Amino acid sequence: MRKRGIILLSLMVILAVSLVAVGCASSGSQQAVSYRAEIAPGTLSVDEYAKYYPKQYDTFMKTSEMSNEGSKYGGSEEFDKLVQWPFLKEIFAGYGFAIEYNEDRGHNYTLEDVSKIKRINEKSIASCWTCKSANIEGIVEEMGDDYYGANFHDLKSKVTEGITCANCHDPQTMKLVITQPPLRDTLTRLGKDPDKLTTQELRTLTCAQCHVEYYFAGDKKVVTFPWDKGTTPDDILAYYEEKGFSDWKHAKAGTPEIKVQHPEFETFSGSTHAEAGLSCADCHMPYSMNGGEKISSHWWTSPLKTMNESCMTCHREGEEWLKERVFYTQDKVADTMATVGNVNVEAIEAIAAADAEGANKALLEEARALQRKAQFYVDWVGAENSMGFHNPQLTFDSLSKSLDYAYQAINKATEARTGVATPQFEVNAPKTNSETVKQMSKKS
Amino acid sequence: MRKRGIILLSLMVILAVSLVAVGCASSGSQQAVSYRAEIAPGTLSVDEYAKYYPKQYDTFMKTSEMSNEGSKYGGSEEFDKLVQWPFLKEIFAGYGFAIEYNEDRGHNYTLEDVSKIKRINEKSIASCWTCKSANIEGIVEEMGDDYYGANFHDLKSKVTEGITCANCHDPQTMKLVITQPPLRDTLTRLGKDPDKLTTQELRTLTCAQCHVEYYFAGDKKVVTFPWDKGTTPDDILAYYEEKGFSDWKHAKAGTPEIKVQHPEFETFSGSTHAEAGLSCADCHMPYSMNGGEKISSHWWTSPLKTMNESCMTCHREGEEWLKERVFYTQDKVADTMATVGNVNVEAIEAIAAADAEGANKALLEEARALQRKAQFYVDWVGAENSMGFHNPQLTFDSLSKSLDYAYQAINKATEARTGVATPQFEVNAPKTNSETVKQMSKKS
Repeated sequence: MRKRGIILLSLMVILAVSLVAVGCASSGSQQAVSYRAEIAPGTLSVDEYAKYYPKQYDTFMKTSEMSNEGSKYGGSEEFDKLVQWPFLKEIFAGYGFAIEYNEDRGHNYTLEDVSKIKRINEKSIASCWTCKSANIEGIVEEMGDDYYGANFHDLKSKVTEGITCANCHDPQTMKLVITQPPLRDTLTRLGKDPDKLTTQELRTLTCAQCHVEYYFAGDKKVVTFPWDKGTTPDDILAYYEEKGFSDWKHAKAGTPEIKVQHPEFETFSGSTHAEAGLSCADCHMPYSMNGGEKISSHWWTSPLKTMNESCMTCHREGEEWLKERVFYTQDKVADTMATVGNVNVEAIEAIAAADAEGANKALLEEARALQRKAQFYVDWVGAENSMGFHNPQLTFDSLSKSLDYAYQAINKATEARTGVATPQFEVNAPKTNSETVKQMSKKS
Repeated sequence: MRKRGIILLSLMVILAVSLVAVGCASSGSQQAVSYRAEIAPGTLSVDEYAKYYPKQYDTFMKTSEMSNEGSKYGGSEEFDKLVQWPFLKEIFAGYGFAIEYNEDRGHNYTLEDVSKIKRINEKSIASCWTCKSANIEGIVEEMGDDYYGANFHDLKSKVTEGITCANCHDPQTMKLVITQPPLRDTLTRLGKDPDKLTTQELRTLTCAQCHVEYYFAGDKKVVTFPWDKGTTPDDILAYYEEKGFSDWKHAKAGTPEIKVQHPEFETFSGSTHAEAGLSCADCHMPYSMNGGEKISSHWWTSPLKTMNESCMTCHREGEEWLKERVFYTQDKVADTMATVGNVNVEAIEAIAAADAEGANKALLEEARALQRKAQFYVDWVGAENSMGFHNPQLTFDSLSKSLDYAYQAINKATEARTGVATPQFEVNAPKTNSETVKQMSKKS
């Protein structure tokens, strides 16, 4: 036995040495790729970067392709969310999103799409340019916080570039960098230096420059991320409640409402993939070999289109199997959201009906406070771009909370109208059975 | 390059051959383990099997250990579910489960625990022995379906064994086998031969002899699995609705209610782990090396106590990390269930209050029909032993449905009392945006 073991060990050592030798020789014959093209500081145009990084550029340009192939609830085709989810038109009554709410096309269309959007009118503010262009860093450097509240149309001539390489890369070193003022400001406010992030943090936080919930704060309408209490939906709602912030007053319910943007970063935080150490880029910008060079894809789209590179590096099951698992989650989220959305509309109608009958004002205000919370949670799920996939548990949790608050709003509105209150049963359960067992031991 | 490749390939072939040679030699020196002890047919006592399978027996006896160590919501310690979840006492009013509802101890205590349970009274039927003993197959062979409806106490002398090896193993070959008449009958009824199952099917279905939802059908009170429409909560509720089946009439609400048992098998079906081809045994009876022999653990408990053997064979993350992920799901399920459970109690109270005021009878019946559905879904989650882990998506889906039906019941009861109906908004959304995109293309 010992003799066989020695032979086996020797063979393994020889093999290991051979592998290293072969590997070294091969890498010597490969062309060393330099990422220090030293493009002039301040260069924004994609065309300049394309000269030095043609392979990345090719993938970047795929973002112009529009297809939902492979994906069921996302993709890159523009579509009308108000058609897909009829409840949205009702919950946003009195606000721009009830007029038009399109699922955007890819990054390459930001300037074209923002210019034709019906929500933009003559009074729109410059803040709306913030996530559409690489020019913003420079503009804010020049104008300071006055940029945000300026007139949208007055700044049109300054916004020459869409989203380019410069949004995330230092042109000289190509290192990842946070350029967008709102994220830089938020991180600084929360005690995190935006220039001292790890590469893996940056592979998520460059995306979080835009794929986040934000609001226009104060008279200057500064784009601000409401992360001071944390980044869960509960934390962010608590933040808005404390600030007494609202985006508009609902046309039917009279409720001061919050419009949630696209909280991909916040939803992903705490998820299994996030806690496993994955960044946005790991799935959405997978590595691939291209002409003997390993590059990171810059085709931003659903990973369901690049499952081999995005998923199969970790998951051993087949693509079709894995896709069905994604749909198993997403279908249940979509079905639940449809139900919850409809009940949210019923809450609005119940408040409006009670108000029309001259119901008890104080109780109606309570109903509105509940309806505001309900709407925040369902809007969170509807605005987030993954149909729950980024964090299924958190998504279902948000939908349950929305449903609960929406029905509470209905019941409060009914009480305001009829005087009949719904019975209350609010008995707190011990959190875990470990606690229960301890309690029982103490008793005996 | 080609030369190096050939050298490398040769070395790999040599290594592979060596490995096979070493492997074969080793296995030759190991003792071949025979699983054909040929224990006499009909042998039930664990002690007989223990003579031939002492290692498995050692793990089997660990099932007597009682500890929640490692687990947060399960384990093996007996605890009072009515203390842990106060809503349960209310939703089961008028039924035995409101008197006592304990989380059972392990398999080894079935006879002791069933004998002291307060729900068992002088009128209890023999069906209650069905999953507590290895004697049942023989008793049903002898008595036929008359067994089920016989008096519980009359059969006490025949029930000499608890759950033993014979519940799942053929004593002569030790092959897995379905012995329990209810599962055999159900599979046969659904066109599946219980004697022609694959080993991997049996590694789940032997557990599904008992860890399932069932009811007492007809005058003979035959233990029956309601799987004829499928095994999801939706399917099983539809089955009961069609049969017009109920276990009892709720003491406060007057609703004909269904009591869900422990639908572990049904919940697990369709889950990620199930669809990945895993059986119950893969996590709950993991393989381990014991004195040079590979055995399957017969210590039935939470896999959180045996994570190295149960989880780490597939999952590469650390145990602590993985456990936190389990708790991330379970904590959200527990919090949501607490809310949903309380709303279910409010629905009962609302119906009782409306009834006491002489509300509209027809509308009250509608409220009861809704409350029955609500209770079925929350009971499903509360009765299922995994706090959602076996299938988080399905569990959250069930909780959402329960919450929706419970509030609908409240609203209908309020309408029965006040005449004021809740506004309805039931606009169906296209299922996916792929459909929406297609619709939009047709329009343009």
